[in-house]
Amino acid sequence: MKKIINPKAESWDEIIKRPSVNNDKLLTLVSEVFDHIQKAGDKAILDYTERFDQIQIENFQVTKDEILLANKSISKKLKKAIEQAKKNIEIFHRSQRTKTIQVETIKGVKCWQKKYAIDKVGLYIPGGSAPLFSSILMLAIPATIAGCKEIIICSPPNRRGSLPAEILYTAQLCGISKIFKVGGIQAIAGMTFGTKKIPKVYKIFGPGNQYVTAAKQLATKYNVAIDLPAGPSELLIAADETADPDFIASDLLSQAEHGSDSQVILVTTKESIIEKVNVSIVKQLENLPRKKIAEKALANSKMIVFQNDEFATNFINDYSPEHYIICVENESYYIDRIRNAGSVFIGNYTPESAGDYASGTNHTLPTNGFAKQFSGVNLDSFCKAITFQKISKNGIKNIGESVELMAEAEGLIAHKNAISVRLKKLRNEN
Amino acid sequence: MKKIINPKAESWDEIIKRPSVNNDKLLTLVSEVFDHIQKAGDKAILDYTERFDQIQIENFQVTKDEILLANKSISKKLKKAIEQAKKNIEIFHRSQRTKTIQVETIKGVKCWQKKYAIDKVGLYIPGGSAPLFSSILMLAIPATIAGCKEIIICSPPNRRGSLPAEILYTAQLCGISKIFKVGGIQAIAGMTFGTKKIPKVYKIFGPGNQYVTAAKQLATKYNVAIDLPAGPSELLIAADETADPDFIASDLLSQAEHGSDSQVILVTTKESIIEKVNVSIVKQLENLPRKKIAEKALANSKMIVFQNDEFATNFINDYSPEHYIICVENESYYIDRIRNAGSVFIGNYTPESAGDYASGTNHTLPTNGFAKQFSGVNLDSFCKAITFQKISKNGIKNIGESVELMAEAEGLIAHKNAISVRLKKLRNEN
Repeated sequence: MKKIINPKAESWDEIIKRPSVNNDKLLTLVSEVFDHIQKAGDKAILDYTERFDQIQIENFQVTKDEILLANKSISKKLKKAIEQAKKNIEIFHRSQRTKTIQVETIKGVKCWQKKYAIDKVGLYIPGGSAPLFSSILMLAIPATIAGCKEIIICSPPNRRGSLPAEILYTAQLCGISKIFKVGGIQAIAGMTFGTKKIPKVYKIFGPGNQYVTAAKQLATKYNVAIDLPAGPSELLIAADETADPDFIASDLLSQAEHGSDSQVILVTTKESIIEKVNVSIVKQLENLPRKKIAEKALANSKMIVFQNDEFATNFINDYSPEHYIICVENESYYIDRIRNAGSVFIGNYTPESAGDYASGTNHTLPTNGFAKQFSGVNLDSFCKAITFQKISKNGIKNIGESVELMAEAEGLIAHKNAISVRLKKLRNEN
Repeated sequence: MKKIINPKAESWDEIIKRPSVNNDKLLTLVSEVFDHIQKAGDKAILDYTERFDQIQIENFQVTKDEILLANKSISKKLKKAIEQAKKNIEIFHRSQRTKTIQVETIKGVKCWQKKYAIDKVGLYIPGGSAPLFSSILMLAIPATIAGCKEIIICSPPNRRGSLPAEILYTAQLCGISKIFKVGGIQAIAGMTFGTKKIPKVYKIFGPGNQYVTAAKQLATKYNVAIDLPAGPSELLIAADETADPDFIASDLLSQAEHGSDSQVILVTTKESIIEKVNVSIVKQLENLPRKKIAEKALANSKMIVFQNDEFATNFINDYSPEHYIICVENESYYIDRIRNAGSVFIGNYTPESAGDYASGTNHTLPTNGFAKQFSGVNLDSFCKAITFQKISKNGIKNIGESVELMAEAEGLIAHKNAISVRLKKLRNEN
């Protein structure tokens, strides 16, 4: 990891820069797949599955038998673990439910706001090197609590034409029965347009590689919403001598193993800890199966020493980390000054991986500096708010003239008239 | 307006189709302006202002003197109207504030979620035929309640190089002092990249023509968020014989005068009202200054008769109107069955224009069917949620094994290790 001492504020923009992700090149391929699937539906889905996933499938919808089989192959221990995670995630996301808000803004004018579930949502779960069943928990649980009527999952089949047992088990545990063995661009296109088998959805959630990311971008052109703009995962740790160097090293490595483009940053005001953390990283790195990936990520990563906590926290807000571990003596100072972050982990016994799996918070978070303006996935991600108003005769008398004056000043006379015809009627009633 | 009787469900998709807006052609121009402004900053802003707005301006930031002058030129009556609207909008949006949510998901694992204002937001206020100062109220008020630190306004200058007094008055009333006489693509590009004069913002809000819409789309590629995907404004009215035909006609016309591409739809189960509404439309249309625009919009609009309330409400949810007026005897049935709408207006004395200006609800709403998955602008549009967790030694003992098992099953051993090093330490402590 690169060591940077007291960087000047002018250089921060350069330091916080993420590796730029340019999907433009992929867009031609993505557009082609979209066009084809829009026209040919399931037939095209099968063709692309053969082309991209090297597998011929007849029926890409998961059957009840497949789920039963998966259920049998998962160990009791793992099942209990997943159930514990599910329970915690449910508790935290259920607590995010909001009540209908109702006020009388002026006598006779009642306004309210009520949240509604998005009726149809699609969850994309990547395949590849590892079965990321934890993402099903993070997406299906809030979707279910929100009350989404149709929740479907798409995930790429392996070379045997099946999905990992962990994915099937977790999906059925969350009550999802419509699962499709379709991955990549073809999955996103299928959920965007709908096919005979795959329902069209209104919003698509979930992580994915650069093809999936580009496809989700294109989906928004066809009136489909997406959860978050995507980028490589990130962790920033603020630590001092009260932090355990072995813990810090383990957290940096857990982020670094995600991918060679992962961002890992250590911020401190105490230069002395850097050496200790480095020693521990070397030791822990040795036995990691994903050592090579982690090493690459670390090569691009930074350890930054600031002269004081104020500079450090200013920098952290500028960086806007996806994951942010605070492990310092003066933790309340660091917490109070937070303005931009995805999810925050406080203290020596709060590793990021707790939140990745089982503490209850969501792990679908804004990367790439998007924490400046985006929330991570939460219950509201599966809802939209509708506003209502009901105005009495008295109410329209109270605000009518204001509306007339403002509409006239904006040159919108029909808007004014909609009030005038009503006020006239009321005058005639008296 | 076209009359459609008992349309079959198979034909609904065709009926609910909005006029397709294709901004692709504009994108070359928009990209060119973005590139130029990214490189040349304020100099390019001035060049494009001269080219597109036909006005040479030296200083495009509004001065205190300009605001004082505007203040004097607004009538007391209009000021009072704007202040009443402001008060109501404040009451409704203040009621949307949410408290920090905190739960202990399992003993020793505390998780919480707190909302934070987006630090820097840009409000675009269109110029053109009418000074839409009401949009300033709808955007600046929730931005201020949310606590956004930097709120700026961009609006195109007129041929005299100034902004309408109503816009300046309303902006200062809302406490906005950074106002720029910059419009169109150049305004969006300026707020996206930042120039010496215009601050870079994290999220851009506000309506605009097709150029502004395309520019906002492009801004999202540069890590800027936008409020909503845009489309022509819409109103759907559900009415029966209890609705006053003059009122219904006035509401349809108030929507139709927005633009020739406005969408106006009347849904009813009582065919008899259609003739009465049509007669009233013809009468009211006569004296409208924007008669031609309204006529064009009405030519594309529909009056649809359904055989019963169930069909009617199913269709309305499929259509997902931006504005939805319910004026029927059995109003609770219609309200209970709402799933998709931007803002709902209930009863004979609740015209859309009340909500456009002064009742308190927001008028920045999802069009084009986006009410299926988007909320209108509300307090949360100016905020993002950050999650936190703090785990005690006891807490990590409670969830540690679950995390280890799940991380291992996902093949992420460094994630597992981040737990294992901590559990080991705790075992050694005992």
